[in-house]
Amino acid sequence: MRPTVPFVHGLNSAEGDLWLEALRAAQPSFDIVLGEQLTPAQAEQAQVAIVANTDPAELARLPQLKWIHSLWAGVEKLMTALPHPQVRVTRLVDPCLTNTMTEAVLAWTLYLHRDMPRYAGQQAKRNWQQWPVPLPSERVTGVLGLGELGGASAARLAANGFEVLGWSRSPKKVEGLKTFCGDEGLGHVLGRADIIVLLLPLTPHTMGLIDQQRLDTMKAGSSIINFARGAIIETDALFAALNSGRLNHAVLDVFTQEPLPADSELWAHPNITVLPHISAPTNKTSASKQVVETISRWFADGTAPSFVDALQGY
Amino acid sequence: MRPTVPFVHGLNSAEGDLWLEALRAAQPSFDIVLGEQLTPAQAEQAQVAIVANTDPAELARLPQLKWIHSLWAGVEKLMTALPHPQVRVTRLVDPCLTNTMTEAVLAWTLYLHRDMPRYAGQQAKRNWQQWPVPLPSERVTGVLGLGELGGASAARLAANGFEVLGWSRSPKKVEGLKTFCGDEGLGHVLGRADIIVLLLPLTPHTMGLIDQQRLDTMKAGSSIINFARGAIIETDALFAALNSGRLNHAVLDVFTQEPLPADSELWAHPNITVLPHISAPTNKTSASKQVVETISRWFADGTAPSFVDALQGY
Repeated sequence: MRPTVPFVHGLNSAEGDLWLEALRAAQPSFDIVLGEQLTPAQAEQAQVAIVANTDPAELARLPQLKWIHSLWAGVEKLMTALPHPQVRVTRLVDPCLTNTMTEAVLAWTLYLHRDMPRYAGQQAKRNWQQWPVPLPSERVTGVLGLGELGGASAARLAANGFEVLGWSRSPKKVEGLKTFCGDEGLGHVLGRADIIVLLLPLTPHTMGLIDQQRLDTMKAGSSIINFARGAIIETDALFAALNSGRLNHAVLDVFTQEPLPADSELWAHPNITVLPHISAPTNKTSASKQVVETISRWFADGTAPSFVDALQGY
Repeated sequence: MRPTVPFVHGLNSAEGDLWLEALRAAQPSFDIVLGEQLTPAQAEQAQVAIVANTDPAELARLPQLKWIHSLWAGVEKLMTALPHPQVRVTRLVDPCLTNTMTEAVLAWTLYLHRDMPRYAGQQAKRNWQQWPVPLPSERVTGVLGLGELGGASAARLAANGFEVLGWSRSPKKVEGLKTFCGDEGLGHVLGRADIIVLLLPLTPHTMGLIDQQRLDTMKAGSSIINFARGAIIETDALFAALNSGRLNHAVLDVFTQEPLPADSELWAHPNITVLPHISAPTNKTSASKQVVETISRWFADGTAPSFVDALQGY
């Protein structure tokens, strides 16, 4: 019997159709059915669903739902939209996505390391001026968040010669990396790093983590890259730190409201690089393959995937 | 006896003094003496000299000169300033310099690969628009020049997942790299690569190599990075290729006249990134070490260093 797997999404229909096609191609032996096209019997029986930007009402139509697989790595919104607390959630972990994120971390770390924003400003003024380049071993980078994406990004920075300090809320060992944890560890990393990379999940603990007090402890002239979630940095405090010259530059790929509103002051700040959430776009083919493989294993012998801890939020 | 080694330079005096200090620190048992401070007896006896941006008249004062060690990797000007054709020339080969250059090649290849110029243009217009990112394995890079710097840069691009095609004028094998040579090979590489990196020496063969005809054979929408010498690209033809949209972007670090004159049109072109010759600045400490080690070996037992081939120019 072909198992039915609901695909419940709040994407625009063109994007939803591309995902549906990729998911069906990845596992032709499933009946992957859009949420709104489920028969009452299919909705009644569904135990697992694939979701993206879902409307909680849609999930409430699936009374037997045991778990859902998100198409995204970040699930903080989904965790607040569950039909009942017993439903468990699996995040996307895709080696291809991980590699794209580590590439983005390396690309924008090099962007800061090699002074690209400064040279762009000089070009606009037709100003020919050279600045010394430290060796990468003299450039301290700090990666906050040592999960799948943070750990791999830290390793890639180290492989390219940078000194890397890793930080996570609770103690974590990462091969070949100096790691720190807790409040004291955070102060140490912020005080030493020239370039800070945020790869933390958004949780009650990380919301507003980079506030005025913590920005004040950052090394003078350092820069920050946010590839995690907008709400981890307090925007007003960031502006103040950039305007006072304490912070050199911020690369922001994520915002509390996306798309970033046209009237946001962030667009025009000379020391902010605004990116439209493109650090690690999901590759539909490779993500679909990961998602259906996980579901197939569960159907085959009940192998449980990794579930998000509802208390920790990741 | 402490051997006397003239240091003959045309740098400004502050820069010359920094080099003198670094060279002396690297080998305290030499008497390293500025060209203008040589006694007539010292000038008469000198067999080897260290030079940077030299005035030919200064070298003509050293009648016994057998060979000179340049502080730079590029020696095309020096080769035309030799006091007599028997004087041989050694170029700087410094692993630290090589690593800095491969870092620059990776940094600005990622800059193009991850569409940084396009996103900067969008930020200026407060435009939130995402563009697909190909996997690095789907992005073909072409490195022209497979010497010390080109070979290492090609290897580093490959290590970061890019498809790499290497080209040199005469056939060359590089481990793990598809290599091409000659005119036909050049056409093949230019036709396939999304990003072309120039790391060729400036010689009569490479002067104007990237002319209108060759730009016409480049893949539509491709980009070019010049970290070699300005005269390798014909500027007018480059402008035409960028204006017609055939070429997407050019990253230029080197120019026929440096500093780039303030009235150059290159500064203001929206599809050109102008850099002030900063791809791989020489690290004085590490370069000095390489230079004096080579000279020490020659003094000790006559071990000849690698000399530039006067006909090939590198």
